Amino acid sequence: MPVATLVEVLDRVDDDTETDIVQDLPPEQAELVLPLLEDRETVVHLLQYPEDSAGGLMSPDVLRLQADWTIDETIQYLREQHPDSEQPYYLYVVDSDGRLRGILSLRQLIASPPNTRLAEIMTRDVISVAAHADREEAAERMRHYDLLALPVVDAEGRLLGVITSDDVLDVQVEEATEDMFRMAGLDESASIFRPIREAAPPRLAWLMVNLVTASLAAITVSLFEGTIQKVAALAIFMPMVAGMGGNAGIQTITLVVRSLALGEITTRDAMAVIRHEATLALIKGIVIGLVAGTIAAIWQDSIWLGAIVGVAMLANIANATIVGVLVPLTLKMLRADPALGSGIFVTTFSDAIGFLVFLGLATLLLSRLT
Amino acid sequence: MPVATLVEVLDRVDDDTETDIVQDLPPEQAELVLPLLEDRETVVHLLQYPEDSAGGLMSPDVLRLQADWTIDETIQYLREQHPDSEQPYYLYVVDSDGRLRGILSLRQLIASPPNTRLAEIMTRDVISVAAHADREEAAERMRHYDLLALPVVDAEGRLLGVITSDDVLDVQVEEATEDMFRMAGLDESASIFRPIREAAPPRLAWLMVNLVTASLAAITVSLFEGTIQKVAALAIFMPMVAGMGGNAGIQTITLVVRSLALGEITTRDAMAVIRHEATLALIKGIVIGLVAGTIAAIWQDSIWLGAIVGVAMLANIANATIVGVLVPLTLKMLRADPALGSGIFVTTFSDAIGFLVFLGLATLLLSRLT
Repeated sequence: MPVATLVEVLDRVDDDTETDIVQDLPPEQAELVLPLLEDRETVVHLLQYPEDSAGGLMSPDVLRLQADWTIDETIQYLREQHPDSEQPYYLYVVDSDGRLRGILSLRQLIASPPNTRLAEIMTRDVISVAAHADREEAAERMRHYDLLALPVVDAEGRLLGVITSDDVLDVQVEEATEDMFRMAGLDESASIFRPIREAAPPRLAWLMVNLVTASLAAITVSLFEGTIQKVAALAIFMPMVAGMGGNAGIQTITLVVRSLALGEITTRDAMAVIRHEATLALIKGIVIGLVAGTIAAIWQDSIWLGAIVGVAMLANIANATIVGVLVPLTLKMLRADPALGSGIFVTTFSDAIGFLVFLGLATLLLSRLT
Repeated sequence: MPVATLVEVLDRVDDDTETDIVQDLPPEQAELVLPLLEDRETVVHLLQYPEDSAGGLMSPDVLRLQADWTIDETIQYLREQHPDSEQPYYLYVVDSDGRLRGILSLRQLIASPPNTRLAEIMTRDVISVAAHADREEAAERMRHYDLLALPVVDAEGRLLGVITSDDVLDVQVEEATEDMFRMAGLDESASIFRPIREAAPPRLAWLMVNLVTASLAAITVSLFEGTIQKVAALAIFMPMVAGMGGNAGIQTITLVVRSLALGEITTRDAMAVIRHEATLALIKGIVIGLVAGTIAAIWQDSIWLGAIVGVAMLANIANATIVGVLVPLTLKMLRADPALGSGIFVTTFSDAIGFLVFLGLATLLLSRLT
């Protein structure tokens, strides 16, 4: 796009959208465009906040009222401000240093007698967010308190801007998409109609990582090649033991990743989550182990094979569940995204450990199977 | 909770929250509570809309203005209405039949000369949603147009209520959670600290379904027991072939499920999506097939085993990808949730078809392997 056209487009959009676009431009183009923008001062100011911070999400276009103004003076002031902005449903009151002191709604303004001072009707207990806080924190706060707008302040409590709930809506949807994509090893910029040339490399890279971890399972199996040669029927139950572990693990990991994302649990709840999921794993393992073991025993006419399938199933479901709790919690503690490739860890562990227990038991009890 | 306490609590919350709670009560308790509520008329009115419709999401607490009122008359009217409601940032203008005719913001109201008639400043082109539309449609519309409130109308265009963006925020988060949970076979009411007694049955039921589909893979393998007995090394590569197919399929299905949820694609795009993903599958299959085949050939010192692993990998990645596109699109066409148990279909198909191709090829080429 020619610079002139780009400037024309940027001058027409909101300050925060404008800043996001400038942030995504190649640096040399951004340098060219920036001095030509109408709102360059605002944009330069906004550029100092990372895109994923509360400051990066806010619009600086906010009106600052004084506590000693009357309703009439305030309405007069609002009339003079040419309210072309879509924003203020809430009005913010600041002191002489620009510190946020109170909030009132336009409806309160209209509903009060004209000579009331703002100090009398404003709410002093204002929920706000620090500019350098994560944008997810801002979203969480707005969702928790059912807010339509959230003021953003600096370290000294000075009002810098405001985040509206339509900005946050996009954040929440993006975050959920990101989590789903990351669990499947897709990068966040994946999209269904991304050009093949761009889509192929990251997906291939992920499958390559998968190939390495799948090799772990293959190596485990290769340790027991001799056993399989003697009892080929073991190969029949290999995918069952591994698969059931994998499915149980995916259930746990999905629940933990989502609960962390929604702020329902924190890393401090680790022990409680482990106890809870371990109990469930035991129940799942015993029931599924009994059923699968019985099927195997009848099908292959071998009590011992049935017992080995059952015990391996129990062990693997327990193993995958614990991995399903520990992987996202550990990633969270390391300040990484808990969803990051969590699927791959569960599959690797449930395959490798599942085969180790199953084929290991079979090797120990080989004399009973042949 | 005793009925008196419940009534006291319900009288304190918003109408739409109140209705949601009444909707979730056991029928006999709802019947007891309903006649005692202060806002029983509103709640009974709201109860006629399903919880997952736009009508179920709206609050009926909306002010209706007339086009021939002046700004001064309107402000007077707003003052008399005791605005305890959090809502109106937008004001709606209706005709004598209650049909939605225009919209204006409180800021416009304040900024215009006192004797202006609303007809002169209101916007006539109002974006609204039908009460019986899906709540996701309402959410999508608000997100698309960056709206903070969306009026809800009946079939005749009469204004029934308004949805605010904080309601929609919850919907979007719930829908994303639901999709993630359903892909993993968790029901939507799953939560990390759900009591074991309630959490165990649905999770067990899902694993039981998994056990049945895993048996399909086991039966497939059992058809080739003789081949495995002769070439036990085949068992080493079984989990690799199945697992890589599964991972490729999960990537595709995640992308399709999320794109459908965000309205980026519809079922009409089926052919385009299939073409796009099939091309990617071919690239992924060839590259991964070559790498895995080479590893197998060197490791087991057999060109033929390498060739079989490579071809089976290509076939299975292509198979799982096509299943990953078709399953969610078919579910969508059948008006079911595209995310519903989609993981299980991919795993089942990629395991069973993967083993069939891999062990089938090995059986055909048995003389080259022994």
